[in-house]
Amino acid sequence: MSVIDAVLERIDQNLDQSLERLFALLRIASISTDPAYKAQCRQAAEHVANDLSSIGFDCSVRPTTGHPVVIGKAAGGSGPRVLFYGHYDVQPVDPVNLWDIPPFEPRIATLAGGRKVITGRGACDDKGQFMTFVEACRAFKAVTGKLPLSITMMIEGEEESGSKGLFGFVRDNAAEFRLDLALVCDTGMWDAQTPAVTTSLRGLLYEEVRIRAADRDLHSGLFGGGAQNPIRVLVKALAALHDDNGRVTIPGFYDGVTELPPKVKADLTSLNLSAEDFLGQVGLKIPAGEKDRILIEQVSTRPTCDVNGIIGGYTGEGSKTVIPGTASAKVSFRLVGEQNPGKIREAFRAFVRQRLPGDCSAEFINHAQNPALQLPYDSPALGKAQAALAAEWGRKAVAVGTGGSIPIVGDFKHVLGMDSLLVGFGLDDDRVHSPNEKYSLTSFHKGIRSWARILAALAD
Amino acid sequence: MSVIDAVLERIDQNLDQSLERLFALLRIASISTDPAYKAQCRQAAEHVANDLSSIGFDCSVRPTTGHPVVIGKAAGGSGPRVLFYGHYDVQPVDPVNLWDIPPFEPRIATLAGGRKVITGRGACDDKGQFMTFVEACRAFKAVTGKLPLSITMMIEGEEESGSKGLFGFVRDNAAEFRLDLALVCDTGMWDAQTPAVTTSLRGLLYEEVRIRAADRDLHSGLFGGGAQNPIRVLVKALAALHDDNGRVTIPGFYDGVTELPPKVKADLTSLNLSAEDFLGQVGLKIPAGEKDRILIEQVSTRPTCDVNGIIGGYTGEGSKTVIPGTASAKVSFRLVGEQNPGKIREAFRAFVRQRLPGDCSAEFINHAQNPALQLPYDSPALGKAQAALAAEWGRKAVAVGTGGSIPIVGDFKHVLGMDSLLVGFGLDDDRVHSPNEKYSLTSFHKGIRSWARILAALAD
Repeated sequence: MSVIDAVLERIDQNLDQSLERLFALLRIASISTDPAYKAQCRQAAEHVANDLSSIGFDCSVRPTTGHPVVIGKAAGGSGPRVLFYGHYDVQPVDPVNLWDIPPFEPRIATLAGGRKVITGRGACDDKGQFMTFVEACRAFKAVTGKLPLSITMMIEGEEESGSKGLFGFVRDNAAEFRLDLALVCDTGMWDAQTPAVTTSLRGLLYEEVRIRAADRDLHSGLFGGGAQNPIRVLVKALAALHDDNGRVTIPGFYDGVTELPPKVKADLTSLNLSAEDFLGQVGLKIPAGEKDRILIEQVSTRPTCDVNGIIGGYTGEGSKTVIPGTASAKVSFRLVGEQNPGKIREAFRAFVRQRLPGDCSAEFINHAQNPALQLPYDSPALGKAQAALAAEWGRKAVAVGTGGSIPIVGDFKHVLGMDSLLVGFGLDDDRVHSPNEKYSLTSFHKGIRSWARILAALAD
Repeated sequence: MSVIDAVLERIDQNLDQSLERLFALLRIASISTDPAYKAQCRQAAEHVANDLSSIGFDCSVRPTTGHPVVIGKAAGGSGPRVLFYGHYDVQPVDPVNLWDIPPFEPRIATLAGGRKVITGRGACDDKGQFMTFVEACRAFKAVTGKLPLSITMMIEGEEESGSKGLFGFVRDNAAEFRLDLALVCDTGMWDAQTPAVTTSLRGLLYEEVRIRAADRDLHSGLFGGGAQNPIRVLVKALAALHDDNGRVTIPGFYDGVTELPPKVKADLTSLNLSAEDFLGQVGLKIPAGEKDRILIEQVSTRPTCDVNGIIGGYTGEGSKTVIPGTASAKVSFRLVGEQNPGKIREAFRAFVRQRLPGDCSAEFINHAQNPALQLPYDSPALGKAQAALAAEWGRKAVAVGTGGSIPIVGDFKHVLGMDSLLVGFGLDDDRVHSPNEKYSLTSFHKGIRSWARILAALAD
């Protein structure tokens, strides 16, 4: 029997024990955003450190400006040195009355149709997910006495509250963590049958703009028709951000946006993401992005512009005949490829300023400015991971982009100089951040097997 | 000595007593919007009724659904039967700490430069103003033993809180008040030297629109680029409401808007209302209305469209990557001439609906729908009033439009079938509705004299 077959067999035989270990971790209410759960966050960190120590990691619970981070190091085979990232903290559980079970009393439930799922806060995000990697390591250790690669574990406790402490920790200890590749298990599958590698994360530029006109609110009876209305100025500028084909009109906006390799685009096209399926779930039916792009491109590999908030004038019940002195909007851009957030920020600001009447002004606040991340499509690790996933799931593993972001992955790239391979087994209906969070038992079991195969492939 | 000269002399000789009577009224805290002042409102009504009785009016304090209205009737000369409208209620006085005097302890103050003013809540709006008419009647009665015309007084107590009770009262008693002409003293002069007759009041159409897209708020990382954003739909529609020349683009919007008679336009032009003077006071400098219209037209005799409020998405501190499910705006139109509010409401709604993507919807709420009012420029009463004012002030009395509205004047036209002659002596710096409200002593004195001259002219 080959090593990998022996490891997979071990995984299958020990699934119950793997579940017990996950359940022990899920019972710890490590809600990072609520100071009332500080002790539980530390308890979770120590729990993880003890567990990693039991399979040969040299572990420490290290302080950050926030909740501690668990670092574990183990030497292994001679392939790439990898940094595995996960997080032990979870989202709050409110409203508790919408849960079918107490959120920190995990159990196996059987859904209508017979699918078995692990339920409880953190079942998927991210305790269930990162434990798939831990259990894969454990099986290797049990079968071969060592790990297939040199692995550094980084399990943090503040992902659900912005990873604030981790940024400084990574910067302060960059030399220690500057390895060859980061592995992350915090993403999803394409669907319950189709594995996926997330190869791109859209960046985010988030701006707030406030238009100032008169130095006070005016009565529209007295001044209406003569005084400039900052809402009118604002909506004129915002309305000009998209052309009739859904393209963003800011000069230079598409600089650095490259076309997908034909093979990748063909893969995406073959997924047949329909407006009915994707938009229908939220009551919509017409893709709103660039008209010459398929929906999956619009939401994952193409840049966007959205007004996330707007306010001005009287917004209470009834009516008030006011011309306000100011109006403001929050405008964000999802970025891809090599788009430069700083250049686009300045281009956006110039775009607005060019549309200002001479007696109005605009103020800007920047709330976020992160470039996109892209795992090169020709990365050897990507090819190996896709092959390993295909072997496990019996389906081609798609390379997808995700519209959201995992902030620390940007620092892995820009501070540590490492690409990240993002593989995860979450499903769209896992209700992460919501009551009744769950993780498919299949995701957990085949997730462990998938990581075993990926580790073996990377070690080749 | 002619009758009018005798009346004017009497006014001059009795100015101190006229002031004493005004002060007695100003001492009553008749704040209509605050239920705590209900007794004071009734006290003011009874005070006014007693005062009018003393000069021969047959008076009653009549109930409405709100504060009572004072009705006084007196027969007089054989000219047009007039209905005089004023209001005894006043605005609240908050913030009291910004007043230089207790708001209900009126006094004469001398401004820098020597101008004498009456200070106190209601000094101008509307106690000081309507008492100019009462004192003119008193002088006529004293000199001639009777009034020059048959006069019905209607002094209400809810103008500052929307005249809600008065609408029903007027409708229910329409036959009683359907006379020949309404006189109103609740407007202003052009400036401290130039008297004015307000010949038009812009109408108001006030709509609220809510755009619905997705059936919930969406994460812009997941859905951005694919899901329609209702803020984008809303700002596109609102931005299209004006063309680059400041004209409203709704089809048919200008139907019923007529050009000013050349003489009236020449008068307005000669007033030289400059952007520096009018807009400079509020920190603006560029007229924002139709580019081919002078500023005074833009704010008084031309129709407008303003967004009075807009809200959608996340409007708190910081940022949130949300694509909201709905966005809404309040949009109002100031109307002139024969513009039909109902037709424009439907045209506006169609304008928005035509710009909706197929998976979005729009809901509308109407908050106001009043046509404009126009005193015909060839009205004999207008010519007589202008001549009387010119005789008193030594300057041509301009016919101006006002951008705001006096709601009950609409009912005088549409329910009672009467035009209204609006003459008042307020000045732009009277701080009506604000702390330290004042009324120029000259406005009061020459206002009484002006009404005496107008009454004499109308009686001719």
